[in-house]
Amino acid sequence: MDNFTFCNPTKIVFGKETEYEVGKLIKEYGGTNVLIHYGSSSAVKSGLIDRVKSSLDLNFIKHVELGGVKPNPRASLVYEGIKLCKENRIDFILAVGGGSVIDSAKAIGMGVKYDGDFWDIYSYTYMPKETLPVATILTIAAAGSETSGSSVITNEEFGLKRGFTSDLIRPVFSILNPDLTQTLPAYQTACGATDIIAHVFERYFTNTKEVETSDRLCEAVVLSMINTVPKVLADLTNYDQRANLMWAGTIAHNDLIGEGRSQDWNSHGLEHELSALYDVAHGAGLAVVMPHWMKYTIDHDPKRFQQMAVRIFGVKQTSNPKADGLKGIKKFQDFLKSIGMPLTFKELGAKAKDIDYLVKMLGVAGKERDGFMKLNEVDCKNIYTLCLKK
Amino acid sequence: MDNFTFCNPTKIVFGKETEYEVGKLIKEYGGTNVLIHYGSSSAVKSGLIDRVKSSLDLNFIKHVELGGVKPNPRASLVYEGIKLCKENRIDFILAVGGGSVIDSAKAIGMGVKYDGDFWDIYSYTYMPKETLPVATILTIAAAGSETSGSSVITNEEFGLKRGFTSDLIRPVFSILNPDLTQTLPAYQTACGATDIIAHVFERYFTNTKEVETSDRLCEAVVLSMINTVPKVLADLTNYDQRANLMWAGTIAHNDLIGEGRSQDWNSHGLEHELSALYDVAHGAGLAVVMPHWMKYTIDHDPKRFQQMAVRIFGVKQTSNPKADGLKGIKKFQDFLKSIGMPLTFKELGAKAKDIDYLVKMLGVAGKERDGFMKLNEVDCKNIYTLCLKK
Repeated sequence: MDNFTFCNPTKIVFGKETEYEVGKLIKEYGGTNVLIHYGSSSAVKSGLIDRVKSSLDLNFIKHVELGGVKPNPRASLVYEGIKLCKENRIDFILAVGGGSVIDSAKAIGMGVKYDGDFWDIYSYTYMPKETLPVATILTIAAAGSETSGSSVITNEEFGLKRGFTSDLIRPVFSILNPDLTQTLPAYQTACGATDIIAHVFERYFTNTKEVETSDRLCEAVVLSMINTVPKVLADLTNYDQRANLMWAGTIAHNDLIGEGRSQDWNSHGLEHELSALYDVAHGAGLAVVMPHWMKYTIDHDPKRFQQMAVRIFGVKQTSNPKADGLKGIKKFQDFLKSIGMPLTFKELGAKAKDIDYLVKMLGVAGKERDGFMKLNEVDCKNIYTLCLKK
Repeated sequence: MDNFTFCNPTKIVFGKETEYEVGKLIKEYGGTNVLIHYGSSSAVKSGLIDRVKSSLDLNFIKHVELGGVKPNPRASLVYEGIKLCKENRIDFILAVGGGSVIDSAKAIGMGVKYDGDFWDIYSYTYMPKETLPVATILTIAAAGSETSGSSVITNEEFGLKRGFTSDLIRPVFSILNPDLTQTLPAYQTACGATDIIAHVFERYFTNTKEVETSDRLCEAVVLSMINTVPKVLADLTNYDQRANLMWAGTIAHNDLIGEGRSQDWNSHGLEHELSALYDVAHGAGLAVVMPHWMKYTIDHDPKRFQQMAVRIFGVKQTSNPKADGLKGIKKFQDFLKSIGMPLTFKELGAKAKDIDYLVKMLGVAGKERDGFMKLNEVDCKNIYTLCLKK
């Protein structure tokens, strides 16, 4: 196991009606003047934003609102949020929504405390030292941003989607009420579940040897998803199944299950270019990319794929690790299909003629992307090309 | 899933040679005058205490020492520690050792900030509001006290072993270097592993329905132990296997895998009376008690035992949940035996004639112990009696 440091102090308040505690919690964390940041109008229509405002009013906490966050959250709204916070002397940001809203809130939080252009942070030319505290009320189980130190923003001006990670931006608290996810349609729910599985697999495919404890924890989350997601899709209002999904989403990305091992984030990287270009759901893009990344990299360590196949997908172990691994990948694709995910570029709406552009935007020319298997420009092109077929 | 709140801010610094960072870390956390608390002379003989003192000296941190913590840590040493801290104006406690040392340090930390008798806290007649910060350098993978909010102290005057739990006493940081556990002999290593498994099973046996995500996480830790412990015992100096064991010990008791579900701590409770009376290793006592507790409670929910048997112990599922469950319990006992654990009172050195006394000390007369299955006085006596035979 590799050396590591882990600290995840985000307080999780999980369960029914927990959103009513938000005012009290913000007060405990010292917030007096809050930006309520959210996405689509559904949070307003459902009455959630009104409940949040009532809870803040009850606790004599001032607030302003900024809605309109879109999936693959945009830099332009981050600039607007930073301006709004500065004008209103905001001291606390509450994100009400899914990963896109939370990621946008994290970007605004850092941007308020930095005099330069916040995009410097996502271009890795400036390392932030401060942020406004961010808390969340989660409404989509997917990104894990509710306790993670990650944020991904799309800069529409440059056509770039870039991530930033630091313990600095872990939310101070997150309210997780599975009831708030019940209105999410089946397709988006399945996209979220796919993102959760990807967060686990990006940790599972490692070059660190003898990491049985974290291997088992990773397998546990995927096993739960295989059992849970069909139940959620069969009854979108089932509280307990929504709860299992929501809790898995947090565990998958709170960093605990991936500590002490090298990781691989190339499926996420390859997908980011797809959602930047086509504005497809991140989970749907991952469903297309990840199994093909697996097929392309299996020779790097067939035994690891065999372990996945046997322990997660119930493949009977033989003396041929690669054959077993390929069976596992096939079963993974079957599962993704069964929950309504696309498996090919065509199903996703991506085009073969764009592959060269996608590779160019990855910025991998003359370089290698690090990970389980190092990927150069040709490798990336080959993986995108594999995505043309199931 | 039940509503819950979770917050575990303990910073974990895991890996080779991490003990050299202790002075720097204590400085970061504001410690200027430290009580170094430890157990047996092995921490001194191995040079670990000297390395710790050097690191503190390098950071200009003052320190005093208190060794002598025994397994099943004693109230008398806690009183001594409180006095020493007050006399020396200690502002930070560093526990160097296993669960007993850490639990003792937590008791001292609370005791220093309370003008009354610290035993009031463990008698639940006083709820502490403050503690000195406690950090740890862990040398035994077992208790999980390095990130937990638990502390168990034996009051030798009253012959009582009592636990206290609160987020207040989670350590501020914990240094986990698997190399520091390599000198622990096979028997104590196996006792620690049994404690880890028990921490999982006490969470696994729940009355909360549909908790697949946390079920899978619990199963993951036990599966890792079944794979890992024999490898550790075959080579006590194997860093990676010691690391898997150590990390599992933390995960098992950091509360994440047991959130949102009712739990059962009756095997721990029944065992505490054994170690209070016979001063046996806690893990050894658990190896005797827990499988018999399982046999006694299986009718309460045979399907849960069947799930354990099938998912953890590889029992082939049949239409008879109880029969499958009993096979799983048998396999659990076989595993415990294979790692050198006792399975009966006789092997443990406990006596049938003491059962009435053990039940009396449990203080269950006229009451019921809550848990997976409620246990009255007769139930407790019956479980102890089952422990006479394998």
